[in-house]
Amino acid sequence: MEKNARIYRINNFSLANRDLLVAETLFHNANGYIGVRSAFEEGYPEGYRSVRGQYVNGFYDVVPMNQAERLCGLPEEKETLLNVADTQGIRLKVCGEEFGMFCGTVLESSRTLDMERGVTERRAVWRSPAGRELELTVRRMASFALPPLFTIEYAVKALNFGGKLELCSTHLGGVMNYANPDDPRVAGEAARLLFPGPAEFEDGCSVIVSRTSRSGLSVAAAVRNALSKPCEETHAARGGSASQTLSAEIAPGETISLVKYAVFRDSIRCGDCRSAALRTMAQAVSVPLSEWYARQRAYLAEYWEDCAVRVRGDPKLDSAVAFSLYELLQSVGKDSRCGIAAKGLSGEGYEGHCFWDMEMYVEPFFLLTRPGIVRSLIEYRYGMLPAARRNARVLGHAKGALFPWRTITGRECSGYFPSGSAQYHIDGDVAYSVVQYYLMTGDLKFLADRGAEIVFETARLWLDTGNYAGGKFCINCVTGPDEYTCMVDNNYYTNALARYNLSWAVKIYGLLKKSGSLGPVAEKIGLEEDEIAEFRRAADAMYLPYDAALDINPQDDSFLSKKKWDFGATPPENHPLLLHYHPLCLYRHQVCKQADTVMAHFILEDAQKFSTMKHSFEYYEAITTHDSSLSACVFSIMASRLGMPEKAYAYFREAASTDLNDTHGNTQDGIHTAGLGGTYMTVVYGFAGLRIREDGLHLSPALPSEWEGYDFRLRRGESRVLVSVGREGCRVRLLSGPPAELFLYGKRVLLRDERCVPLPAAGAEKPE
Amino acid sequence: MEKNARIYRINNFSLANRDLLVAETLFHNANGYIGVRSAFEEGYPEGYRSVRGQYVNGFYDVVPMNQAERLCGLPEEKETLLNVADTQGIRLKVCGEEFGMFCGTVLESSRTLDMERGVTERRAVWRSPAGRELELTVRRMASFALPPLFTIEYAVKALNFGGKLELCSTHLGGVMNYANPDDPRVAGEAARLLFPGPAEFEDGCSVIVSRTSRSGLSVAAAVRNALSKPCEETHAARGGSASQTLSAEIAPGETISLVKYAVFRDSIRCGDCRSAALRTMAQAVSVPLSEWYARQRAYLAEYWEDCAVRVRGDPKLDSAVAFSLYELLQSVGKDSRCGIAAKGLSGEGYEGHCFWDMEMYVEPFFLLTRPGIVRSLIEYRYGMLPAARRNARVLGHAKGALFPWRTITGRECSGYFPSGSAQYHIDGDVAYSVVQYYLMTGDLKFLADRGAEIVFETARLWLDTGNYAGGKFCINCVTGPDEYTCMVDNNYYTNALARYNLSWAVKIYGLLKKSGSLGPVAEKIGLEEDEIAEFRRAADAMYLPYDAALDINPQDDSFLSKKKWDFGATPPENHPLLLHYHPLCLYRHQVCKQADTVMAHFILEDAQKFSTMKHSFEYYEAITTHDSSLSACVFSIMASRLGMPEKAYAYFREAASTDLNDTHGNTQDGIHTAGLGGTYMTVVYGFAGLRIREDGLHLSPALPSEWEGYDFRLRRGESRVLVSVGREGCRVRLLSGPPAELFLYGKRVLLRDERCVPLPAAGAEKPE
Repeated sequence: MEKNARIYRINNFSLANRDLLVAETLFHNANGYIGVRSAFEEGYPEGYRSVRGQYVNGFYDVVPMNQAERLCGLPEEKETLLNVADTQGIRLKVCGEEFGMFCGTVLESSRTLDMERGVTERRAVWRSPAGRELELTVRRMASFALPPLFTIEYAVKALNFGGKLELCSTHLGGVMNYANPDDPRVAGEAARLLFPGPAEFEDGCSVIVSRTSRSGLSVAAAVRNALSKPCEETHAARGGSASQTLSAEIAPGETISLVKYAVFRDSIRCGDCRSAALRTMAQAVSVPLSEWYARQRAYLAEYWEDCAVRVRGDPKLDSAVAFSLYELLQSVGKDSRCGIAAKGLSGEGYEGHCFWDMEMYVEPFFLLTRPGIVRSLIEYRYGMLPAARRNARVLGHAKGALFPWRTITGRECSGYFPSGSAQYHIDGDVAYSVVQYYLMTGDLKFLADRGAEIVFETARLWLDTGNYAGGKFCINCVTGPDEYTCMVDNNYYTNALARYNLSWAVKIYGLLKKSGSLGPVAEKIGLEEDEIAEFRRAADAMYLPYDAALDINPQDDSFLSKKKWDFGATPPENHPLLLHYHPLCLYRHQVCKQADTVMAHFILEDAQKFSTMKHSFEYYEAITTHDSSLSACVFSIMASRLGMPEKAYAYFREAASTDLNDTHGNTQDGIHTAGLGGTYMTVVYGFAGLRIREDGLHLSPALPSEWEGYDFRLRRGESRVLVSVGREGCRVRLLSGPPAELFLYGKRVLLRDERCVPLPAAGAEKPE
Repeated sequence: MEKNARIYRINNFSLANRDLLVAETLFHNANGYIGVRSAFEEGYPEGYRSVRGQYVNGFYDVVPMNQAERLCGLPEEKETLLNVADTQGIRLKVCGEEFGMFCGTVLESSRTLDMERGVTERRAVWRSPAGRELELTVRRMASFALPPLFTIEYAVKALNFGGKLELCSTHLGGVMNYANPDDPRVAGEAARLLFPGPAEFEDGCSVIVSRTSRSGLSVAAAVRNALSKPCEETHAARGGSASQTLSAEIAPGETISLVKYAVFRDSIRCGDCRSAALRTMAQAVSVPLSEWYARQRAYLAEYWEDCAVRVRGDPKLDSAVAFSLYELLQSVGKDSRCGIAAKGLSGEGYEGHCFWDMEMYVEPFFLLTRPGIVRSLIEYRYGMLPAARRNARVLGHAKGALFPWRTITGRECSGYFPSGSAQYHIDGDVAYSVVQYYLMTGDLKFLADRGAEIVFETARLWLDTGNYAGGKFCINCVTGPDEYTCMVDNNYYTNALARYNLSWAVKIYGLLKKSGSLGPVAEKIGLEEDEIAEFRRAADAMYLPYDAALDINPQDDSFLSKKKWDFGATPPENHPLLLHYHPLCLYRHQVCKQADTVMAHFILEDAQKFSTMKHSFEYYEAITTHDSSLSACVFSIMASRLGMPEKAYAYFREAASTDLNDTHGNTQDGIHTAGLGGTYMTVVYGFAGLRIREDGLHLSPALPSEWEGYDFRLRRGESRVLVSVGREGCRVRLLSGPPAELFLYGKRVLLRDERCVPLPAAGAEKPE
C-alpha cells in the first residue's frame, strides 16, 4: 500500500488478459477532452483481446441500429463514440532483440497512477532471451493544461549491455471500435466507421485526418517523436498509417528517452482541424515536457485543494475516494460540446453515451466544488433541447421536450424503449439539476438564459404525459430508474420528480417575472400565464403512491401485487439477474436492479415523513440486487439519513470498490462514472448529510465508527469552506472569501472563521 | 358481376403496379401444401415491383434477427417461409415479336378465380406493335388431388396471322424472398437463403434441388413442358436455372397450348426429395391434364357440398363469403407438419408465421365442417410442445409450456416481446381449441394421446405465472390480444382464458382417469394429483377485473385510469395508428387495436352477465380502431349476441371486404386468413349464434334485415346438417347420418329429418 493515497500502484502486475483489460481502464489517461486506454505500447501477443482505444469527447459517428421489429418511432440509428487514431504504438529493439512483456523474463514490474502528478507509469526490469537486461519506464499523460495533448515518455536504461537501440513509433489511422459478439454490453460487430486520409509528414510531425462515415465529422491527429540524444531517423507512411524509427547506440548504464507527443483536434470544435493540430503541436513542443508536467501538477494541486475528500484512519478507502474524484476530473467534459459518458473516456461500454448519471450522480460533486463544470454540462443539455423537442414529438407529445435516455448529441440512442425512452424521469433529472445549480449559485441570469427554458419545456412534457384520474394527476406507462420493472403507472420516483419539476416551473416563472427577465424565454417558447396555472394544478394534484398498511411508497401502482423474487432459489452465478433472466420474468416480480423509490426519498426527502422513508428503505432493501452501480451509494446515503450507520458504511465500501475491485466484472469496458460520483456522494451527502435546499446549504455530519475522521471542501460563490469531521466534533472553517451562511444540524450559521459542534449520538434521527 | 358467386372476375384489369401486386395475392393458387402467387408468366417491365413467389407450407430457413439491445433470452434468429424455385416463367414470341401486356395493345383482358373448378385464368386479346392479334388464355391450378402439383395451361390463338410461334419456359432456382426497406411489415433486406444445385434434365424434366443456408432443408422442383402439337425443342441449363424453348408454326385461327407441369417435394416430408419429385412428375403426366381438372372440380364439389355458406339476396356478399371459404381451403395445411400462416400461402407478410389466428379464427370454421383438419392442426401444435417447454424455460418458468407467439416449427420468432412472447394468451387459445375439438368430436382417444398434454402443460404455465394477491389469483405483466396496450396486469381476456384452461385441465384429468386413459400422459409429464388441486384452486380464485360503476370488465388493472384517445384530433391519414404513433404513446391511452375483452365475452360468454357484456361492448367500441383484421368479425358476432343487428351487419360487411377491397391496404403482402375465418364466424357464430358447449351444439339464428336468407352446413360425426335461415324461420335438416342432437334457441332438438322454427323478434335478447 502506498502511503500517499493519491498514488495507486500495482507491483509485479498480472499479464492475464482479463487483468490487462481491467488495467487498460484503471490506468487510462484522460482530461475530459481526450482519453487513451492504457494498452502496452508494444501490444500483446496474438490472440489477446485489447480495447486499444483513444477517444475524443463527443466525437461520434452514426451507425445503424437494427430493430428486430420496426415499430413506429423507434430509432434505427444511433451515435457511437469513435476510437480515433492509435498514437500509442512504440516498439523497442535492443541489439536486434525485440522487447515484450510476454517473452524473455520480467524481473520486476509496476504500474502506477499518480493522481497528484497526473501521470501513469509502467515500469519493468526485463531480461531478454539473450540475457540483456534493461529497465523500461513509460510515463503517459493527458494534459489538463493543453487538453488536445497526450504524451508518452519512454525511457530505456541499459543495465548490463551496450549496443544498438531502435525505437519504432507508430501512428495508425486504420482503427476500429471494439466489438465482442459474446457480450451484450458492447457492440457485437466491428465496423469501420472512421476513414483515415493519407498520412503526411509536415513540420516534423506525422498528420492523419480521418473522416467519419456518416456524421460528417473529421479529426486530425499529429504525432511527433523526439529522442533524448542524437539518432538516426527514418520515417515511412503507407495509406492511413505512419511510422518513425529512431536508432542510437546505448552504453551500459545509459538511459535514452523517447518523448512522443500526440495531439488531437476535431471538426466539432475547430474549423480546420488539420491546421489546428499542427498549431497545437507547435505549442506542445514550444516548451520542454517537464514544463507540461509542472503545469499538470499545478492544475491538480488546485483541484485537490478545492475538491479533496480525505478519510482519516482508513488509507485504502481514502485512496478509493481520491481515485473516484480523479476519475471524475479525467472524465468530465469541460466545454459545452460534451458531457460525461457513463464510462467517461476510459472505454467503449455504453458507446460513449450520456445518461441521467450525469445529472444525478456526477453533478452533485462538481456542484459543491467546481460549479463552472455543472454550468457547462447544463449548457450541453441546453444544446440538446431542439433534439429533445423532436424526440417528444416522436413519442406523441404535442408540446414539451423529452431528453433522450442515452445520447451523445441529443439523438435518442436507446434500442429498447421500455427501459430506454420510457424512462421519462430523465426530464425530471435534468430539471432537478438546473434547480440545484440555481440554488447553489443563485445565478438568475443563467437561469433566465438557459435553465428556465429546460424547466418549462420539461414541465410541459409532464403536463402532456399525465392525466387526471379521480382528481389526482397520474403519469402512466413510464419506466422509473429501476430497470427490472418497466412501463408502469405512477412510478413514485417519476411522479415525485415531475411534481418538483412542475412546481419549480411555477417558481421560476415567478422569479423571472419579478426580476424582469421572463420576456425572452417566454416569448421564445410561447409560454402563457394559464400554462403556468396548469403546471401548478398538476403539481398540487400529483399522485404519489402510498400504502398505508406498510407505510411505504410503492414503486408504482402494481408493484406490491407482484410476486416477490425468490432469492433463496437464485444461485449466486445467476447474478446479475439481467444477464440470466428474461426481462418479462424480472418485470413480473418484486425485484429491483437499483434504488428507485429510495432514490426519490434521497433527493426529495421533504415529500414523505421519516417513518415512510425508513419503512420503504427496509422494504426495498430486501428486494434490491444492486445489479446497477448506481444503487449502493444511494442506499448508503439513505442509510445515513435514516440512522443506520453500519449499513451506510457497508454500502459505502461497496460503492467505493466498484472499479478498483472490478466488483461488477465489467471495468474492462470502462470506469463507472456514476458509481465514482456516488462514492463522493456517500461521504458528503451521506455521512455529512449535505443538502442544497431553497433556504441554503445544510450539513449534519456523522462519523462512521470505523474512521478517525474525514474532511472535505465546499465552494459557494467566493467562499471556500473546509468541513472536518472527527471524534471531537464537526469543525467548519472558512478558508477564504466572504462569510458563508450554512445550516449545521438544522441551525443557521454565518461562518466567519471557524465553528466546531459536537456530533450527534450515533444512530439518532437527524433533525432535518 | 358474375352470376355464379363462386367466380370472381375482373375485366379489363388495371396494369398499375399496386393493382398487380394485389392481384398476385387475390388470384394466387394454393392447396395447403404449395402456393404460387399470380405474377404474369412473362413478368412486368423493369422497375415494377412483384412478389413473384411460390411457397411450400412449413418450408423455412433460419435467419438472424438482430436485437437493437441484446437482453437476456431474446431470440436472435427466426424462421422465415422461403420463396422456392420460380416455375412460372413463360415467354411468348410470335413471328419474332415478344408478347407483353405493357407493349402493343391490350384489346380485352380479364382475370378470373373460379372456385368451383379450382383454377385461375388470365385472358387477353392482344395486338402486337406490328398488328398481329392473338388471344391468350392462361389457366393455373394448384392441385388438391395431387398437392405437389402446380400446372399452367398456356393457350395462344392466332387471330389474324400465321407464322412462327416460340415459347420459352423457364425454371429458375436462384430466387430470393421479397424485401422492401420502406415497409416495416415485410423483410427489409433481401438475402439469398436458398441455394440451388445445378439444373439437370432427366425423364424429360428439368430438376433443381435447392438447399437452405441454415435450416438444413432441401426442396426439389421438377418442371416438364408439353406442347399441343409437334414442335422443335431445345433446352438449356446454366447453374441453378433451366429453360426449354418450343417452336412451331401457327396458322391463322389456330390455337396452340403449352402445358407446364411443376412439382415440388421437400425434405421435411420426403427422404429423397429429388426422387420424390421425379416420381410425382411421372404420376402427374400419367393422366391428361383434363383428368386433374376433373379431380379438382370433384374435390371442390365435395367441399362446397359440406362447407358452403350461402347468402340469399346479396350476391356480392355471397361471393365474398365464398371467397373466404375458398381461401381458407387453399391456405390451410393438411398434414401435421404445418398449419395456417397469417397470410396462408399467398405472400410473405408475417414471414409465413402462424399465430393464434389459427386457433381462434380459422379452426372455428373447420371444426364445424372439416374436423379432420382441426385434428391435424392440433397435431401440428402438439409437435411444438418440446419447443414450447424450452420457450417457457427461457421466459423463466420452471414448469409448463409456453407456445411461441409466432413461429413455423415452434421457435419463438417475435422480435419485440412486449407484443410478442408476452401474449401468454396463446397458451389459453391453444388449450381452448383442444377443448372445442373435444366438445365437437367427443374424441377421447385423441384427447388422451395429444390434447390433454397440451392442456396440462399450458395449465402448469398459468400456475407458474400467476400469484395470489388478496386471495385472488392474478396474472401480471402479460399482453392481451389488443397490441395497443402491452405488459399489463390481469388482462381480462388472458385471465378468463387461463381460468378456462385451468378448469379444463381439472376436467380432463377426471375424464381420462375415469376412462382409464390417464396413465401414459400423467407418467410422461409427471403429473400429480396435488397439481390438479392447485389448478382447481387457481381457477376458482382467478381474478377477473370488473368495474361496478360502469358495469364493464376493464381490459386490465390500469386500463380505466388512462387517458382516452382523442379521435377528434386524429387525422384520417394517421390510421392505422400503429404506423403513425410510437407504441408508448398508444400504450398510455385507452385505445384498442382490436377486440380484447369483447373477444373474451364471445368465447367465454358464460363468465359474465348480459348487461356487463353489453356495456363492455359499448365502452370498447368507442375506443377501438379495428386496425387489426381480427377485430371487426368479433364485434359483429358480439353485436349479434347482444341484440344489435345493424351493427352486426355493418361489422360483417367490413370483415368480408378486407381482401377483396384491400381495406387494410396490405393485401399485396397476402390474404388475411384470420379475417377470412372471421367472415365465416360472423355468419355462423354471429348471425346464427352457434356455440359449441359442454352440453352440445347451440344455435339461435337471426336474419339480417338486408338479406332474404342464408344457409350453411354442419358436420358432427356422421351426421350432416343443413341450416337455412329465411324470413319464414329457421329450418334445420338432417342431410345424412344418424339423428343429430342440437339446441335451437336453447331448446334441445333431436333432429331426425327437418325442423322449422320461427325467428325471434329482431333485436331481442337471445335466450342463451
